[in-house]
Amino acid sequence: MNNEVEKISVFRYTGESENVTEDVVVREVPLTIVLDGHELVTLLCSPSYLDYLAIGFLYSEGLICSKDEVKQVSVDDVRGVVHVETFRHKTDTGEVVKRYIGSSGGRGLSLYASSSTDGLPKVDSSLRVTASEIMSLHHEFQHHSEIFLATGGVHSAALCDSKNILVFAEDVGRHNAIDKILGKCLMEGISTRDRIIAASCRISSEILIKVAKRNIPVLTSKSAPTDLGVKLAKDTGVTLIGFVRGQRMNVYANEWRLNDARR
Amino acid sequence: MNNEVEKISVFRYTGESENVTEDVVVREVPLTIVLDGHELVTLLCSPSYLDYLAIGFLYSEGLICSKDEVKQVSVDDVRGVVHVETFRHKTDTGEVVKRYIGSSGGRGLSLYASSSTDGLPKVDSSLRVTASEIMSLHHEFQHHSEIFLATGGVHSAALCDSKNILVFAEDVGRHNAIDKILGKCLMEGISTRDRIIAASCRISSEILIKVAKRNIPVLTSKSAPTDLGVKLAKDTGVTLIGFVRGQRMNVYANEWRLNDARR
Repeated sequence: MNNEVEKISVFRYTGESENVTEDVVVREVPLTIVLDGHELVTLLCSPSYLDYLAIGFLYSEGLICSKDEVKQVSVDDVRGVVHVETFRHKTDTGEVVKRYIGSSGGRGLSLYASSSTDGLPKVDSSLRVTASEIMSLHHEFQHHSEIFLATGGVHSAALCDSKNILVFAEDVGRHNAIDKILGKCLMEGISTRDRIIAASCRISSEILIKVAKRNIPVLTSKSAPTDLGVKLAKDTGVTLIGFVRGQRMNVYANEWRLNDARR
Repeated sequence: MNNEVEKISVFRYTGESENVTEDVVVREVPLTIVLDGHELVTLLCSPSYLDYLAIGFLYSEGLICSKDEVKQVSVDDVRGVVHVETFRHKTDTGEVVKRYIGSSGGRGLSLYASSSTDGLPKVDSSLRVTASEIMSLHHEFQHHSEIFLATGGVHSAALCDSKNILVFAEDVGRHNAIDKILGKCLMEGISTRDRIIAASCRISSEILIKVAKRNIPVLTSKSAPTDLGVKLAKDTGVTLIGFVRGQRMNVYANEWRLNDARR
């Protein structure tokens, strides 16, 4: 964690007093992802698990589909570059990168801009959960969020089963926090089948799409969803739960996965 | 505001009870910006002031520099497209768009990924403010945030002088909220000289750069900054104030603009 925050001096007003004091702010660094020698994208992120972030990003964007395609991942912390080498021919990757950048209208985020679920399969999972499981997962989740507690500046995400947090990540970017988890799962062979993603962030369409593409059946957040997030959750079969706070929560889509729901 | 939220039915757990109830979620729509016939980017945003958003985005990204360059802005609400026509030749714009997409590494956000202030001028303003002015601006600012109060799902931003809110915007994307303000200022001829931007969001490098590029001397937020946001504020001369809450606030950079600071 120490690498992810920085101590700085601030001028603090408190109504009664004003003084110079030490404060902790979250770090934010540019990270360039280079795929087979082709510069793909530069993200702003928290400087941890940059390898998982790069792999998760490529995975979410459909530029790699399995661990077997990845030959090598090397992180240059100082320059803020991750080189990902695949078993593809460099020229083939060049074509892929060109098409990707072209198709995304210059934004580098191909599917995100779409409000349709074309190309998104229905989530295939018979997982059931209870409201109390979700609430106690979020209770644990909140206690995991060390950097946020210190700085108020990052988003957290976690892959969970119905009882425990399995993988946890934090980042200044909410997309990055999810991608770090998905990247770690891919590289470490951690199954996402019948799992739950807990998040601290608002659930926009982009976040929902990342989760649905990985066939993860439940997405929970302490924050609000957008209408497009709810629509896509309904269409893809993701159980979407928002405002998980204390003993309260709202289920926005596919409440049939809640065992104790009165249906 | 009605256009920006949607009523949906949710399954609500409260510990004691579970029931189906009506809830309000914030809307999120894809918006494609077409510049002189060239598709530039698709943003996800709240469906209000799409013309200002498009113009503000182009302005922030350096693709237009003044109102005089803009011939026409037409919004197609149904398809989610804003067509911006300039006085440039279509072929020239084609080159600009191509270079822009290329230079941004496919992300469509050219300057954002840079941690340097190359190309960013020093803010030129002798504005002074007091801590109590900032606190009372934020008090008013919070009361303006209607959609957030209803849905918990948007970011707000405002252009202010030291006493009043002059322009206010909300959006599911924090960059968009700022761009809507800057776009409105450009199109309506509202000066940003010696002004203050108040925001609800975390201050990342991207937000700081947008503000510094417009020569706006003070940026305040109820949330945290990142270290890169603080560094860029110091470099560009922006007075950066975070965690403005009630009678408290932290000044992270250029505190000399605070009249009552003990220096």
